[in-house]
Amino acid sequence: MSQSADISLKKDPTMRNWAIIIAVALIIWFMPTPEGLTLKGQHLLALFVATIVGFVLAPVPMGPMALLSLSLCALVGVAPIKELLVGFSNTTTWLVVCAFFLARGFLKTGLARRISLMIVKAIGSSTLKLGYAMAFSDLFFGPVMPSITARGGAIVYPIISGLCEVFDSKPGASARKIGAYLLQVEHHATCIVSAMFVTAMASNPLAVAFASEIAGVEITWMGWCIAAIVPGTVCILVMPYLLYKIYPPELKETPEAPKMAREELAVMGPLSKGEKVMSGVFVGCLALWITGSMTGISATTVAILAAAFLLVSATLTWKDCLNDNGAWDLCVWLSVIISLATLMGKYGVVGWIADSAGGMIAGIDWLPALVIIALIYVYSHYMFASLTSHITAFYAPLLAVAVGAGAPVMLAALVLGFLGNVCGSLTHYSSGPAPILFGAGYIDQGTWWKFGILFTTINVVIWLGVGSVWWKVLGLY
Amino acid sequence: MSQSADISLKKDPTMRNWAIIIAVALIIWFMPTPEGLTLKGQHLLALFVATIVGFVLAPVPMGPMALLSLSLCALVGVAPIKELLVGFSNTTTWLVVCAFFLARGFLKTGLARRISLMIVKAIGSSTLKLGYAMAFSDLFFGPVMPSITARGGAIVYPIISGLCEVFDSKPGASARKIGAYLLQVEHHATCIVSAMFVTAMASNPLAVAFASEIAGVEITWMGWCIAAIVPGTVCILVMPYLLYKIYPPELKETPEAPKMAREELAVMGPLSKGEKVMSGVFVGCLALWITGSMTGISATTVAILAAAFLLVSATLTWKDCLNDNGAWDLCVWLSVIISLATLMGKYGVVGWIADSAGGMIAGIDWLPALVIIALIYVYSHYMFASLTSHITAFYAPLLAVAVGAGAPVMLAALVLGFLGNVCGSLTHYSSGPAPILFGAGYIDQGTWWKFGILFTTINVVIWLGVGSVWWKVLGLY
Repeated sequence: MSQSADISLKKDPTMRNWAIIIAVALIIWFMPTPEGLTLKGQHLLALFVATIVGFVLAPVPMGPMALLSLSLCALVGVAPIKELLVGFSNTTTWLVVCAFFLARGFLKTGLARRISLMIVKAIGSSTLKLGYAMAFSDLFFGPVMPSITARGGAIVYPIISGLCEVFDSKPGASARKIGAYLLQVEHHATCIVSAMFVTAMASNPLAVAFASEIAGVEITWMGWCIAAIVPGTVCILVMPYLLYKIYPPELKETPEAPKMAREELAVMGPLSKGEKVMSGVFVGCLALWITGSMTGISATTVAILAAAFLLVSATLTWKDCLNDNGAWDLCVWLSVIISLATLMGKYGVVGWIADSAGGMIAGIDWLPALVIIALIYVYSHYMFASLTSHITAFYAPLLAVAVGAGAPVMLAALVLGFLGNVCGSLTHYSSGPAPILFGAGYIDQGTWWKFGILFTTINVVIWLGVGSVWWKVLGLY
Repeated sequence: MSQSADISLKKDPTMRNWAIIIAVALIIWFMPTPEGLTLKGQHLLALFVATIVGFVLAPVPMGPMALLSLSLCALVGVAPIKELLVGFSNTTTWLVVCAFFLARGFLKTGLARRISLMIVKAIGSSTLKLGYAMAFSDLFFGPVMPSITARGGAIVYPIISGLCEVFDSKPGASARKIGAYLLQVEHHATCIVSAMFVTAMASNPLAVAFASEIAGVEITWMGWCIAAIVPGTVCILVMPYLLYKIYPPELKETPEAPKMAREELAVMGPLSKGEKVMSGVFVGCLALWITGSMTGISATTVAILAAAFLLVSATLTWKDCLNDNGAWDLCVWLSVIISLATLMGKYGVVGWIADSAGGMIAGIDWLPALVIIALIYVYSHYMFASLTSHITAFYAPLLAVAVGAGAPVMLAALVLGFLGNVCGSLTHYSSGPAPILFGAGYIDQGTWWKFGILFTTINVVIWLGVGSVWWKVLGLY
């Protein structure tokens, strides 16, 4: 037993990964303190970088890594435990935790499925229109569903499966009938939607928190939404059509689709009480989020109130919320990273990074610098198997470089915030739902990657092109 | 359908409870502002009291009630949401959340069962000694197991069941053989143990937080333990013997018990890797907690590190932790109450309560005042079906009264902290495991209540009597 355990240890990358993480921590800890950095700042940097390397290599999930990092920071005296826990009070963390509960309400009441079916029934009479139906379904749930996997995997994917069955499109010879097209549409759509709302992807709050702690700008729910709405909408409108032209489905007309949707809606019967409450909460949430800057009501307050209302009305049980592992997982790792980022600002580490970065790219104008930074950010995602670890590792340093180059801070923070999602289109492992959609087996890896780089590039061009005009209008630069 | 729903609404106490909660909030909100209280303080008081009434009447569990309260406080402008979330950064909250994870490690690895069996094997040769074995088992796990229900219900109760089977003691004629005695012992033991460590009951941190926010004293893990260890140990030593005398089991000698334990231990085999790691973490935790004042390492840091270590060593999976509903439940309701209590201090509401209370009992010496307050606190527990709601509702105001009467603050905070657990002996619904132990059916309600008041009173006398000598030695007054 112990012998075979020893052998397996040698083959297991876990030990190697731990060795790398520890080495990173030790090297930064013991290197000669660079000019402009305090010793305490250096120690914090060592643990921060090691934590992020730990998130990426993931010998344990992010939660345990975060707890380990937190306790070590306190143990070695980088900061008192009290200060290390401040991230748990972050408003954006609790905004997204409560959005997880709202998403659960959508799934539990069946309203998510009903709305998707209603969209198919309304506009699904051709394959192209079905493509738009999938994209619009995803868009519809974007504002209140931070789990991209829930949107792509739990809501839209089952509808696509149902449609494939109706039209007898299966992996293999009949894949191109409609299945391959619809799966590709959803793969790209969910990444575009993720970029459009703070609450559309679990790690967007991380960008918000980094922007606040590292660059000193406060991105509100509405601020993000307004800046994203024009380029995001253009992407959502262009992508299904373009894909239809270059990767046409064999079947063009789908009159059976609205029929299937109608039948399934008939089976579901009239709106249940839970669905009605959920609809009201959804509309109320959106209304209060959109009018937040006028009413002065924080998006977090709205989300917590909405969750409380679902619980009080018994639409959700508290057990449903406690069982939502994704919410509590996020609560832990996100809070710890926010705590560390806050300390990085406080100890002057961020200033030191920005100064160093500024020196590195001295003489380059901020606009080409920001574009280069954006492209590095997007295409480096080939190396990552999760949007979150990519954002955790690259968002803050690249933002520091952009700010160091003189880019308008809010603009840079938002652009990197958006693009950290857009890059999810790249591969079959680049986002939460990607392995699910790819794993359905309708599309080979070569095709997936080809369209991955194509649509990522098209989307980046739209975000930066259309976006730059829109952001000028908004006065972001 | 909707008709029967209407009828059930009328009978359901939920609506009546909500009406009471809302009425409480409105009355305090709109009453003429008392002298010494600001309008903002009055509004906070209204929502705080309504929340606590909500915890007690519980039309929804504490979590949803806390979220509702939090969002309403922000919505009506009592405080910005940022300040309302500060409780989530509280160190004691995370100490206990991580203690939940340690407890899970004890249960998952089987070490909890093994240790209980080892105690039975070592000392269980008579029924009296078995009584002590149950009490000591509970005491053993006290420091790292904040779920009293896990200790009483998941560890000790199954051992008692096993013993009852061996000795053929069943509800009814053979109940008094050994079952009734052992169940009573455990019922009282678990409440005594709960009083002995901050981490032995999920709501003890609430007392710590109230003491900090309301009375301005910081109770450390070790400070609580030292003050409790002498009276707690006396109670644990006296109770099984006294119960043996006044409620004697019919069977006196139990040579089969160590035999059963030996057999079951043989079935378990040697210590697994997980059990070894768990033992090490347990010893390490205790050592670091006990030496905390010397090393300066916070108890919270130790608990987080211990949890991280269990996760990194794969003794626990992160999924195990995320599935620990008790931990996340506590995280939410405790944090919200701590936030509100913090604001109560900040807005001068606490000062106002203490002044008013001081006026009410002007002229009474602090010592008799504290004794009266302690007795009110203990015996009011007849009205409560949970230790937590009792502590939430009564700890803070009674502490304010005690402080107003001039009692030494740390002494009063600790005494109320201890007695909030001791009162769990009173009834068959007064603590988490009480319904489980009573529900086994060995003891009728009259007997249960008789011993409830008897042992509660004996324990109170020991805590206040022996305790007062010990606390004098410690210099607490």
